[in-house]
Amino acid sequence: MPYQSPVTDIRLILSHVAGFDKVAETERFSEATPDMVDAILTEAARMCDDILAPLQRAGDTHPARLENGVVRTSPGFDAGYAAIAEGGWVGMSASPDHGGMGLPITLAMAVNDMMSGACLSLQLNPLMSQGQIEALEHHASDEIKALYLPKLISGEWCGTMNLTEPQAGSDVGALQSKAEPNGDGTYAITGQKIYISWGDNDFSENVCHLVLARLPDGVPGTKGISLFMVPKIIPNEDGTLGDHNSLRVLSLEHKMGLHGSPTAVMSYEGAKGWLVGHEHGGMAAMFTMMNNARLGVGIQGIGTAEGATQHAMAYATERKQGRAGGTGTIIEHADVRRMLATMRAQTFAARSIALSCAVAIDMATATGDPAWKARAALLTPISKAFGTDTGMEVSSLGVQVHGGMGYIEETGAAQYYRDVRVTAIYEGTNGIQAMDLVGRKLSDGGEATYQLLEEICDDAEAAKAREPELARLVWDAAESLLETTEWLVTCDTPDDRNAGAVPYLRAFALVLGAQAHLAAALADPKRRALANFYIRRLLPEHRALLAHVREGAEGLMEISPDDLAA
Amino acid sequence: MPYQSPVTDIRLILSHVAGFDKVAETERFSEATPDMVDAILTEAARMCDDILAPLQRAGDTHPARLENGVVRTSPGFDAGYAAIAEGGWVGMSASPDHGGMGLPITLAMAVNDMMSGACLSLQLNPLMSQGQIEALEHHASDEIKALYLPKLISGEWCGTMNLTEPQAGSDVGALQSKAEPNGDGTYAITGQKIYISWGDNDFSENVCHLVLARLPDGVPGTKGISLFMVPKIIPNEDGTLGDHNSLRVLSLEHKMGLHGSPTAVMSYEGAKGWLVGHEHGGMAAMFTMMNNARLGVGIQGIGTAEGATQHAMAYATERKQGRAGGTGTIIEHADVRRMLATMRAQTFAARSIALSCAVAIDMATATGDPAWKARAALLTPISKAFGTDTGMEVSSLGVQVHGGMGYIEETGAAQYYRDVRVTAIYEGTNGIQAMDLVGRKLSDGGEATYQLLEEICDDAEAAKAREPELARLVWDAAESLLETTEWLVTCDTPDDRNAGAVPYLRAFALVLGAQAHLAAALADPKRRALANFYIRRLLPEHRALLAHVREGAEGLMEISPDDLAA
Repeated sequence: MPYQSPVTDIRLILSHVAGFDKVAETERFSEATPDMVDAILTEAARMCDDILAPLQRAGDTHPARLENGVVRTSPGFDAGYAAIAEGGWVGMSASPDHGGMGLPITLAMAVNDMMSGACLSLQLNPLMSQGQIEALEHHASDEIKALYLPKLISGEWCGTMNLTEPQAGSDVGALQSKAEPNGDGTYAITGQKIYISWGDNDFSENVCHLVLARLPDGVPGTKGISLFMVPKIIPNEDGTLGDHNSLRVLSLEHKMGLHGSPTAVMSYEGAKGWLVGHEHGGMAAMFTMMNNARLGVGIQGIGTAEGATQHAMAYATERKQGRAGGTGTIIEHADVRRMLATMRAQTFAARSIALSCAVAIDMATATGDPAWKARAALLTPISKAFGTDTGMEVSSLGVQVHGGMGYIEETGAAQYYRDVRVTAIYEGTNGIQAMDLVGRKLSDGGEATYQLLEEICDDAEAAKAREPELARLVWDAAESLLETTEWLVTCDTPDDRNAGAVPYLRAFALVLGAQAHLAAALADPKRRALANFYIRRLLPEHRALLAHVREGAEGLMEISPDDLAA
Repeated sequence: MPYQSPVTDIRLILSHVAGFDKVAETERFSEATPDMVDAILTEAARMCDDILAPLQRAGDTHPARLENGVVRTSPGFDAGYAAIAEGGWVGMSASPDHGGMGLPITLAMAVNDMMSGACLSLQLNPLMSQGQIEALEHHASDEIKALYLPKLISGEWCGTMNLTEPQAGSDVGALQSKAEPNGDGTYAITGQKIYISWGDNDFSENVCHLVLARLPDGVPGTKGISLFMVPKIIPNEDGTLGDHNSLRVLSLEHKMGLHGSPTAVMSYEGAKGWLVGHEHGGMAAMFTMMNNARLGVGIQGIGTAEGATQHAMAYATERKQGRAGGTGTIIEHADVRRMLATMRAQTFAARSIALSCAVAIDMATATGDPAWKARAALLTPISKAFGTDTGMEVSSLGVQVHGGMGYIEETGAAQYYRDVRVTAIYEGTNGIQAMDLVGRKLSDGGEATYQLLEEICDDAEAAKAREPELARLVWDAAESLLETTEWLVTCDTPDDRNAGAVPYLRAFALVLGAQAHLAAALADPKRRALANFYIRRLLPEHRALLAHVREGAEGLMEISPDDLAA
């Protein structure tokens, strides 16, 4: 049973959970009519199902490799990438000024979701370009925009993000790469960068690196960092290609998964670069790039969860075993049914949150309303962390449904489990996301959160007549989350908030997921069974998580390294 | 920071949690004096730390492979195995009648724990032999015992378990392998077996396969299955080796992890076998073998959790990042501290449960008291499933603590994560364990469970004076578990019990873990911080799990395959 893009679920979420109709009603996105949305989802699904999904296993069994300094990609990835580029999927939400389709980011994320489920390692490539396009649109000079954006949007060139250095991971401010003015408006970039996803490939004409580095007068820490465009091949002003830049791939990492995506150690050796944004303004530009990428990575987790769920469903409905009634396949066992229902229900919850986040981004773009901006900012770390946690949890259940077969690589279940593991780490670990949520995102005194929780309570109130029991459970959960949020806002120390940041984020996501399931049940009677499962069986975890949060840091930091030794 | 066997934790658990003193007081195990225990733990730790732990990475990077029908093991595994065999560690708890040390199984499990943390893939080899030794001791004829046991106990020969066939996994009764009487008291065994751990090696003189097969008059299902000893090389009566038997390794599986352990597809082609136990009595013999192995596999999860925890601790106390106070390493971050505390606290809980299970087995052996037997039977599935779930959870946190480095194979964190994944699957998936718990283990009307929960309440009661808050939380949790157990016992249908079997098992384990932490805190003031963390932050999950259990099957089986499609 081959992969089928989850068009039905996405449509339901757009229409009845995430409120996409509001986006289509704005002038900015008035082209996103229901017919247009249908056409896009259908067309993208065809590409994902027919062209990308068949590449999934080759990306694992034939990893990208470095040959004489050149990256050779997995078999078929060149044709897969060409399909993505030619379909216009890289620049879907990019501005039409430089060839983009100007569509809502929500649709781009829906397509990213489908592509991730089909072939995660290849999908990571256009995701990087999308982040770069957005960063350039917001921060680059007109010259850079005119030169780079058309090529990135068409997919002729690819983009990468160069943040991390060996001694500077989550603490970006510790980076040491240098940028020296060349005197002609360009800069000489020198330094080593690690974990560069798709740092090179053999199917695009050029690879454009956005590199964080420090100018000679840059102060230590994040405030002294600037962003530079450093192309692999230096383009002429007309967009034709000139000389090779002074940069190279030193090596590719040997990773647990995602073997189709080359993760490079990059060396910049006085490479020519162009400033993007203001001097010392690199962090702002980077956050633009990362915000998009954070939601995109959450979507990667969700897409992988989708792929793993379909894979397990196919096995469970074919594998005959035991004396269970019905068809005699293992899906008739209550425990297998529980696992599959958990997979589907969590995937739906995570997808709903991420697409709601995307809708908030679009609404902020279309209306400029700070409330939408705050909503998007609030939902971004939740989408990233819960989406990727869901990817891990669901792919692990996928392995388990397969029993012994799940541990054998040829089955393919293990690949989802290995591939998705990195999504909880890159673009800011899930711990960093959670600290962002309880830190920066509550620094408004909790206003954006309270507004969202009020909406959930209102939704539950409105649902009471038709779904009294489920509505009550959702209302209670939102109230509990509200109380703990109030407690967090008044916490004295960052440690008190950070100690429970990860459980708080998960509790928040569970409540949002319950809201989504309730909405789905109201919209479609066929969704009631799954909503019931989620709200009655999975949602209760939020109480335990909130109890954890309320403990704060007291007693935690007293557990010494000695106490943690065996 | 190299691996250090967790001798301190094991000593604390033996003395203050699992009640090992009772074992040492029995006549049967009177040799297990404190001095003897100390000597054994110290000696085993030395081997694990110095000889086995250095083999861990080679088992992953240089997998066992099949060359011209012969298995070649990972570099150094031959010397590692020799150290295990020569130390007498294979036959620690085997009867002295055939060369064993006759020590409590509790000590053997403690040593297995240390070996698993040092090098899981190699440790699986003696674990298989131990299961075989126990099965032979209980079920084999005197001739077979005399011929095989001395060699297995000395480690000169290795043992395997051959249960699974392509169409017969969790449903063993579906197996098709045949045994035809040869007329001379031996049998001709024909069939194919899969997932045979350590199906062959290049360091032991012989490999002895215990194979489940059906005699010509065997009825379909589990009641028609018999057990046979089928040696790779047919021994002469004096124990010298004769002809090669008609069996071979067809292939080795390409697995997600545990690469150092060859997982074989075995072909028996009229191989000569000897009946072990009664005709058609194979399942009883298999359960003996599997019960030991189930606890042993739980211990594998715990050992892996230990290795992953130490590995992450070493990184967290060395990796400098951020502006946190103290030493400036990442362990000063509240979220990292939370992860490490979770790892250590869950590992301690799982280890306490497993060693308590081992103590119950020893007490049953020493006293014949059916209450101890029931206790051991109750704790076995919990030890297996929670031990291996803990291995997965803790090794995933270990990857997360490492950040980007965790995803790079050279770091070693990923190996724990990949290796341990199979332990939740083999020897009966964790779902099967949970169904055993809510099915067979509650079929006494819950008596053994009630008795155990009463003990927990008594312990909590007694702890009230010194730890009022923690004691109250433990008491409440045990009460909640008791109520849900009462509900389970009166369930009408197996589906109602099975639907919540997995959450029930986990809730049970969390309560047992809390009891263990409380006991540790009372015994050693230095353990209070960790006990506090566990009982206040991790234990609350039990409520959500029990809410899940109480839902039963209602609404679950109504979620149709269509509802589970995207």
